[in-house]
Amino acid sequence: MDIKAYIGSRKQLVDVFLQSYFSVPFQPKKLHESVIYSLSAGGKRIRPVLCIAAFEACGGSADDVVPYATALELIHTYSLIHDDLPAMDDDDLRRGKPTNHVAFGEGMAILAGDALLTEAFVLLSDPRFRTAAMTDGQVLRVVNEISFAAGEEGMVAGQAQDLLSENAEPDAKTLSFIHAHKTAALLRASVVSGGILAGADADQLDLLRSYGQNIGIAFQVVDDILDVVGETGVIGKTAGSDEKKKKMTYPKLYGVEQSKQKAEELIAAAIDALSSFDEKAEPLRALARYLAKRTS
Amino acid sequence: MDIKAYIGSRKQLVDVFLQSYFSVPFQPKKLHESVIYSLSAGGKRIRPVLCIAAFEACGGSADDVVPYATALELIHTYSLIHDDLPAMDDDDLRRGKPTNHVAFGEGMAILAGDALLTEAFVLLSDPRFRTAAMTDGQVLRVVNEISFAAGEEGMVAGQAQDLLSENAEPDAKTLSFIHAHKTAALLRASVVSGGILAGADADQLDLLRSYGQNIGIAFQVVDDILDVVGETGVIGKTAGSDEKKKKMTYPKLYGVEQSKQKAEELIAAAIDALSSFDEKAEPLRALARYLAKRTS
Repeated sequence: MDIKAYIGSRKQLVDVFLQSYFSVPFQPKKLHESVIYSLSAGGKRIRPVLCIAAFEACGGSADDVVPYATALELIHTYSLIHDDLPAMDDDDLRRGKPTNHVAFGEGMAILAGDALLTEAFVLLSDPRFRTAAMTDGQVLRVVNEISFAAGEEGMVAGQAQDLLSENAEPDAKTLSFIHAHKTAALLRASVVSGGILAGADADQLDLLRSYGQNIGIAFQVVDDILDVVGETGVIGKTAGSDEKKKKMTYPKLYGVEQSKQKAEELIAAAIDALSSFDEKAEPLRALARYLAKRTS
Repeated sequence: MDIKAYIGSRKQLVDVFLQSYFSVPFQPKKLHESVIYSLSAGGKRIRPVLCIAAFEACGGSADDVVPYATALELIHTYSLIHDDLPAMDDDDLRRGKPTNHVAFGEGMAILAGDALLTEAFVLLSDPRFRTAAMTDGQVLRVVNEISFAAGEEGMVAGQAQDLLSENAEPDAKTLSFIHAHKTAALLRASVVSGGILAGADADQLDLLRSYGQNIGIAFQVVDDILDVVGETGVIGKTAGSDEKKKKMTYPKLYGVEQSKQKAEELIAAAIDALSSFDEKAEPLRALARYLAKRTS
């Protein structure tokens, strides 16, 4: 299948929804501008696309899950704004543009992140976006799945460990904790949420969870590799910044070649987890392969 | 009724729940410590108490709503941590203790706030805390009510306007926007959420909403007055800090005496909204009077 066309079409659904959802400016205007600035900075919408692909793999129709999938992009965007702050990674460039705090000031950037995180839950719990087939119970499970993955036992924990580990000697256990929490948790929740909303049974959800966990770690390994071998203009952030900030990364611990092999193994395991799914899961399989080969 | 005893007993339920909920430390340890530091800094638990009182006013039993009420305290605590940051209000003292970023550093303070906000939704959507009488639909409405009140059309909007209005000439419209969003929105949502979870009907919820909105504004007016007439040791933060930071406040615009009268009127309107409620709403009425008279 043409995975680039698939990603493009699903990304388009998310972008159209985002534009409509945020079309009425809220007050103060500068907060709205700050939120829109980061949302429209050219993200690849990988988390929403994974959510939609999982929803389709379980028999759903893409359009029906777009609002829920978009909530994941709001959370991802908040995490980028906060990660880039001077007190955290102190990055000036993101997706080829000045970071939010460079453009709007630190205070407004913190608030834009807070607004995006909170709005994800407004969106998830908005009854207007429910289809007849979705139950309150399913939506509540999604709220739980996503908040757990984003919070103190998920993404925030990973970011905190990352912050504490700068300048520290890399060790496999800490590196694994950071990647599993900072990156894999929300990617996994994106996949599982699509399954829940499509009415997947417990066995299917376990398999989607395994798929999501494996591509989640692989995604971060590839990110680490790109920071070493990629070019600033292509990867959309400053190449070599992990090294400069003495981040704990896969290439640092295992070297680039072994890291590439690790990513390949994780992708194979992800695809293997989907062996009992039919051809409707082809986009999920192709996404796994695509994420391993990406150059940006 | 003895409102101090009522507040004390309900606060105790919340504190016991908080202690149990966070008793298993999560990783990294420093993130857990930072979260616990602010949660146990001696807050008055006004938002949870209001939620419990509204739940009881509509026929519920206090114990049943404690986990949901506690979620409001997590959100309130996150907002204090982020508000105190150098890029925002730049406060060193909160509830008589060094603020979170002074104790743990800015990066960890931002993450502790993010963790608390996110954990509120983990808690709200946790099926373990549901009683047999509560429906998935009610809990989802509470998620929507609270996230809306906390987000870009609620608390975060108020904080953003507050940030943008420092050093600006006070005007009634902007001041009203800040107070309604920064403070009243979450207090109102606390009351309404208690009503929703107790199965209140639409008319009752409207009345609770009116009560909550009025005490919400009154609460902030009293806060502004205390910043002028209170003492640092008593109010738990640095007295006179609004003036020093050139904040837009009620006393600045209307003077202390007229502000006191405004608070009295709001409290009277709040109590008036509850006229069709029976004696089970007595704690809500007494809370309104108490909040107007408080000295800390």
